[in-house]
Amino acid sequence: MTTDPHRTAPLVSTDPRTGTTTPTGLHRSSPKDVARVVADAHRAAPLLAAMHRHDRATLLDAMAARLELAESVLVTTAMTETGLPEARIRGELARTTFQLRLFAEAVREGGHLEATIDHARDTPLGAAPDIRRMLIPLGPAAVFGASNFPLAFSVPGGDTASALATGCPVVVKAHDSHLLTSQAAYEALRAAVADTGAPEGTIGIVFGREAGIALVSDPRIKAVGFTGSPRGGRALLDIVNSREEPIPFYGELGSLNPVVVTPGAAQARPEAIAAGLAQSVTGSAGQLCTKPGLVFVPAGAPGDRLVELLGSAVAEVPAQVLLNRHIADSYAKTGERLTATDAVTAVASGGAVHGEGCTVTPQVLTTDADSLGAVLEECFGPLVVVVRHDGDEALRSALAQLPGSLTATVHAEPHEEELLAGLVPVLTRAAGRLVFNGYPTGVRVSWAQHHGGPWPATNSVHTSVGVFAMRRFLRPQAWQDAPTSLLPVELRDDCAGVPRRVDGVMTSG
Amino acid sequence: MTTDPHRTAPLVSTDPRTGTTTPTGLHRSSPKDVARVVADAHRAAPLLAAMHRHDRATLLDAMAARLELAESVLVTTAMTETGLPEARIRGELARTTFQLRLFAEAVREGGHLEATIDHARDTPLGAAPDIRRMLIPLGPAAVFGASNFPLAFSVPGGDTASALATGCPVVVKAHDSHLLTSQAAYEALRAAVADTGAPEGTIGIVFGREAGIALVSDPRIKAVGFTGSPRGGRALLDIVNSREEPIPFYGELGSLNPVVVTPGAAQARPEAIAAGLAQSVTGSAGQLCTKPGLVFVPAGAPGDRLVELLGSAVAEVPAQVLLNRHIADSYAKTGERLTATDAVTAVASGGAVHGEGCTVTPQVLTTDADSLGAVLEECFGPLVVVVRHDGDEALRSALAQLPGSLTATVHAEPHEEELLAGLVPVLTRAAGRLVFNGYPTGVRVSWAQHHGGPWPATNSVHTSVGVFAMRRFLRPQAWQDAPTSLLPVELRDDCAGVPRRVDGVMTSG
Repeated sequence: MTTDPHRTAPLVSTDPRTGTTTPTGLHRSSPKDVARVVADAHRAAPLLAAMHRHDRATLLDAMAARLELAESVLVTTAMTETGLPEARIRGELARTTFQLRLFAEAVREGGHLEATIDHARDTPLGAAPDIRRMLIPLGPAAVFGASNFPLAFSVPGGDTASALATGCPVVVKAHDSHLLTSQAAYEALRAAVADTGAPEGTIGIVFGREAGIALVSDPRIKAVGFTGSPRGGRALLDIVNSREEPIPFYGELGSLNPVVVTPGAAQARPEAIAAGLAQSVTGSAGQLCTKPGLVFVPAGAPGDRLVELLGSAVAEVPAQVLLNRHIADSYAKTGERLTATDAVTAVASGGAVHGEGCTVTPQVLTTDADSLGAVLEECFGPLVVVVRHDGDEALRSALAQLPGSLTATVHAEPHEEELLAGLVPVLTRAAGRLVFNGYPTGVRVSWAQHHGGPWPATNSVHTSVGVFAMRRFLRPQAWQDAPTSLLPVELRDDCAGVPRRVDGVMTSG
Repeated sequence: MTTDPHRTAPLVSTDPRTGTTTPTGLHRSSPKDVARVVADAHRAAPLLAAMHRHDRATLLDAMAARLELAESVLVTTAMTETGLPEARIRGELARTTFQLRLFAEAVREGGHLEATIDHARDTPLGAAPDIRRMLIPLGPAAVFGASNFPLAFSVPGGDTASALATGCPVVVKAHDSHLLTSQAAYEALRAAVADTGAPEGTIGIVFGREAGIALVSDPRIKAVGFTGSPRGGRALLDIVNSREEPIPFYGELGSLNPVVVTPGAAQARPEAIAAGLAQSVTGSAGQLCTKPGLVFVPAGAPGDRLVELLGSAVAEVPAQVLLNRHIADSYAKTGERLTATDAVTAVASGGAVHGEGCTVTPQVLTTDADSLGAVLEECFGPLVVVVRHDGDEALRSALAQLPGSLTATVHAEPHEEELLAGLVPVLTRAAGRLVFNGYPTGVRVSWAQHHGGPWPATNSVHTSVGVFAMRRFLRPQAWQDAPTSLLPVELRDDCAGVPRRVDGVMTSG
C-alpha cells in the first residue's frame, strides 16, 4: 500500500499578525483532483458559452449578491489570513462586487463581442460572400489567486469575473496565503451558480503549488491569468510554452511605478506631495502592484525639503503587518541589500517592530540618478527609494533605463508644459498608465482603465482591470453565408441593441 | 583575415517551371546588417507613432500606388519566381493594394484605437479620477514573407500593412522562394515612404534564414508575424519564448480545412460541389492556406457519385508547378506516404508530369472515417482526401478528432437544419471560420473577416486578414487626469469623428 503524497500534509492557515497557524481542513489537490475539476470545467464550457449573455450577466450579479451575503465570514477570515485591516478588506469586497456588476452591465450591452457584419456585395476583387464575425469564449481558464488581494484579484476577482463574463469556466488555484478566504469565496460563487441554474463546473478550485502546475499543463485549459512575482510568472510561462498547444498567458508580474516630481511641483506643494506619497507607499502596507517604488526628485533645496517631509510622514507610520512570512523575509532582505549599497542612504523609518508575526518597518531610502542600476528591483512592501537627479536631461536618461511598469506618475505645475511634453514619450514607453498630479494606487475599475504595461509589468497587450479585461478570454469566429438560424443572435440582421459594425460603419446598437 | 561566412554564398533565384537558377545580386544579411536595419526601425518607431493617423493612411495609399506603378516588373518577377500564372499574380497584386487602401480607410476612421473616456465622477467606491484609454503601437515588428503569396502575405502583404497602419515600423524577412519579387516590392514601399516624408526605417528587409533568427531575437523587435509551416513556426516561437522580454508571436501554421457534404447536398447537387471542390483544391496549385484538405462524404450511392465526379474533375487538371523544390518534394513524399497506407485508395490523378521544374500531379485519395488518424497531416499542394463515413454520429466523432483549422465548410440542403445545428458546435471548436455552401479559398478582405483558428492553425486569438489584423500590433495605454494638451487628439473631449466609448456609452464618432 502506498500513501498518496499529496494527502500527507494537510494545509494550514497562518495569521501574519501573530504567526499563529491553524489547520484549515483543506488538502493539496492531487493530480486526480485537478483532472476532475478541469473535466467539470471542460463539460461546462459549451453550456456556459451557449447561455444568452443576459443570463451570464444574471450569474455575475448573483455572484456579487452571494459575496455580500457572505460578507461577515469573508471579512473576518480575510483579516485573519492577510493581516489587512477591516476597512481595507471591506473596501476590497465592495470593489469585487462592483466589478462583477460592471462586467454584468458590459455583457448585457454586448459591445465586447465586437460584432461585425459585412453583407455580400461586389468588390473590386469580385463578388464577396456575406461574412459575420464576433468574439467567442476560449474555453476553461486557469486563474491564480494573488497574495495581496484575497478577493479582488483572487477567487472572485477580476480575472475570474472577466473570464466568466465571456463564457469561460474558471478553475482558480487558491493562494496559499489565504486558503480559507478562497474556500469561502468559492462557496459563495458556487451558490450563485446553483441559484441561477448555470452549469456545474462553471467555477472550480484547486489547492497547492503542484496543482497549479498540473492545471496550466492540462490540455483542456485554454488561457491562464496570473498575478504574482516575476519568478513565479516566468516559471508558469515556461510551462505554458512547453505545452503541445500554446495558450495565452496573462501575467502581471511586478512593477516599480516611477513617480516624477518636477522642480515646479517640489517648490509649489511639497507638503501635499509628501503626504500623498507616504499614503500611497504605505497603504495596504505597500503591498499593491501599483505602489510607487521610485520617486524622482530634483537636486536642490525644494527637493531636499520634499524628501524631508516624506521622511517625516513615513516616520509616523507604525510598523506594518505583511501578508506572509515569505513576503516579510523578502522585504527585509531587499531592504538590507539596498541599504548596504554605498550609494543608497536611509532617510527615515516608520515604527519599530515589536512582537511576533510578519511585522516590518516602513522605509524611505535615497540615492542619486547615477546609481539607479542598484535600485531597479521591486521591493514588495512599504519601502520607497527617492532618486535625486541634476536636471531634465539626467532625469530623462534615468527614466529611459527603467524596466516596464504598470504606471508612471508625474507631479508638475501648469507652467511646466514643455518639460512635461518632453517626459510623456519616455514615460509612455515605460508604463501602461500615466498619472498626472495624483498617485498610482487606487486603481479605478471602469471602461477606460488599463492595468498592464511593458514586460516585466505584464507580458500581454491586454489589461487585467476594467471592462476590456474580457478580451483576454475571447477569440474571433467568422461565419460565411450562414443561415440566419445558425448565427449567434448578436449577428442576425434583426438583432437590436448591440453595438455592431455593419458594412464598415459603427452603429451604437 | 577571416571571410564573413554570410557573404560567401550569393543568393540565387530559381524558376520552378524550369528549375533554372539565376543570380539575384542579393546576399544573406549578416548579423550586422540585421542590427542596422532593426536600429533604423527602432529610430523610426516613435516618429511613425507620432504621425497623425491621416498621414499614416496617406502613406498606405502611396504604397498601393507605388506597387501599381511597379506592376509589370512585380508580375513578371513573381511569375518567374513562383510559377504562378499571370492572372493569379495580377489578382494578388489587386488584393494587396486593396488591402493597403482598406487599412488606410480604417485608420482614417480611427475605430481601431478603441478610444475610451471615463470622466471623473463619484462612484460607489469613492471619487474616481478621469481615465482615458486607447491603443498605441507596440514598436518595430518582424514579418516573415510566405512562400505562397509573394505579394499579399509577403513584403507588402497583410502583416506589413496592418503593422504600418497602427504605426509600427516593419522589418520583413524575405522568403527565399521569391527574393527578387521581395526586393522589388520593398523598393516600391521605400519609394512611398520617400514620397510621403514618412520616417526612414519605416520599412526594412533582410535575407536568409539566419537573419530571420537574428531578427526575432533582437530586443528592439516587439512583435512577430509569420505564415509558414508548423515546424518553422514552432522553431521561431521557441526562439521568441527564450527572449528575456517575451513578445507576441502571430503564427499561421497550417490547416486541414475540412469540408462536410451532407447526404442531402450529395444527393441534390453533386456536379456543382465536385466542380467547386476541384477548383478549390487545385487553384493556385493547391498552395493556399485555406485549401480543402479533407472532404467528409457519406457512404452510399450519392456519395459514390460525388467522389466519382470529383475524381473526373481533378483528372482533367493538368500537372501543376509548385512554388519550389522543397514544396514539390514534400508534396511527393506526403502523397506517397498516404497512398502507401492500406486504408487509403487513390481515386484519380490529374495530368502526368513531363519535363523539368517543380511540376506535380493533382490527386484525389479516399479513406474511411475509422482511418482518419492516417490522413491528419496537411499536404501542401493539389491533393485532397475524401473521408467516407456511415452517418451523423460517425461524422461528428471524426470531426471532433480534427486539429484546429482556419476554416470548416458545410454543404447542406435547407431541409437539413437539424443536422446542421448538430454540426455547428463541433465545427466551431475545429475552425475559425465556418463556410456554408461555398468554398474556403478566396478569403474576402473586409472588416468581418477572421483568418485564424485553434492551434495549429494559428496560436493567437487574432486574425491575420481583415481590418482587425491591426489589433495584433497595438497595446493599450491609459492617461489619468492628463492635461488636454498632452492627450492624443483622439482622446480629447473636442475630438469629433472617431468612434469612442464615453462614460460607458458607444458613440459612432
